[in-house]
Amino acid sequence: MGKISWKPGTMLYPLPVVMVTVGEEPAEYNIITIAWTGTVCSDPPMLYISVRPNRHSYAILKRSGEFVVNLTTRKLAFATDWAGVKSGKDYKKFSELKLTPGKADIVKAPIIVESPINIECKVVSVTPLGTHDMFIGEVVNVMAEDAYIDKESGAFTLAAADPICYSHGQYHTLGPSLGKFGFSVAKKKK
Amino acid sequence: MGKISWKPGTMLYPLPVVMVTVGEEPAEYNIITIAWTGTVCSDPPMLYISVRPNRHSYAILKRSGEFVVNLTTRKLAFATDWAGVKSGKDYKKFSELKLTPGKADIVKAPIIVESPINIECKVVSVTPLGTHDMFIGEVVNVMAEDAYIDKESGAFTLAAADPICYSHGQYHTLGPSLGKFGFSVAKKKK
Repeated sequence: MGKISWKPGTMLYPLPVVMVTVGEEPAEYNIITIAWTGTVCSDPPMLYISVRPNRHSYAILKRSGEFVVNLTTRKLAFATDWAGVKSGKDYKKFSELKLTPGKADIVKAPIIVESPINIECKVVSVTPLGTHDMFIGEVVNVMAEDAYIDKESGAFTLAAADPICYSHGQYHTLGPSLGKFGFSVAKKKK
Repeated sequence: MGKISWKPGTMLYPLPVVMVTVGEEPAEYNIITIAWTGTVCSDPPMLYISVRPNRHSYAILKRSGEFVVNLTTRKLAFATDWAGVKSGKDYKKFSELKLTPGKADIVKAPIIVESPINIECKVVSVTPLGTHDMFIGEVVNVMAEDAYIDKESGAFTLAAADPICYSHGQYHTLGPSLGKFGFSVAKKKK
């Protein structure tokens, strides 16, 4: 065992992998799959997506200033990959993938109805960094699939939706929970 | 089934969960666990970490302009949680957690030797967003544990290190791979 020094690179994994939806009207609705995404602030709730300027969704994002982050699941893994490989220049991705565009509550961009969580965002800044521009979005609403809301506690159980992540070129489901935040200092129940 | 509209919130999951190390000399070395992190640019390779200004590491980050992102694993889950709950104001986290500070190649901040991947970063910008400040770091070097480098292909096999992620309040290992990037359009081998 020992350490080897590599060249600099993007080696932060596992990452989320989400389907971002854009478009102000049905004719321009598009889906772009993104792993360069994360939460950047708790309050106000903000996240980012990084997008290459040559992507079809880029101009729509810039003009509309809105997008929706749709979480992905095992059932959506094929669509997630396909929407990341193919371009909205060549395909109507919603119909090709048999996904249903739904009405968001606040933004004009559509939600993907089949996704368990849809995060509606308004762009607050765009920062060119190199290959990618970083769009920071403020979360203006979250839509949740009620099938995953626990009837007794009212809590949303994301694990029941079978979420996936992206790790070093591979899509993965999640394994069992190792514990919740704070488990290392939790008092054991007697 | 149907959609319920919630209040805005941080519902992007699963996320990475990393141990960030800071400090220009051993007396101030600290570890802070962070899930608000992600890759923001491929070339130059850049990532961000979002940190609350009241965290012990914040002033060290600001002054030194350097940090290391250490990936976490099933074996490091307890340390990951503990380093996120406890403060460097009260504890010397490396010694409390029996983790080994190692020398990074480029930055003064230490690496965690027990982590499979250490990503050395130099801060290029700090943006106050609300509860959190977003630090964008350019990746200046990556150190990798050679036990996870495949002897034949030379490829790093992160999955062999048993990485973990953070999803809606829970730490999870990864399940089996569902396929690699591009699987939805790959030609089947005959």
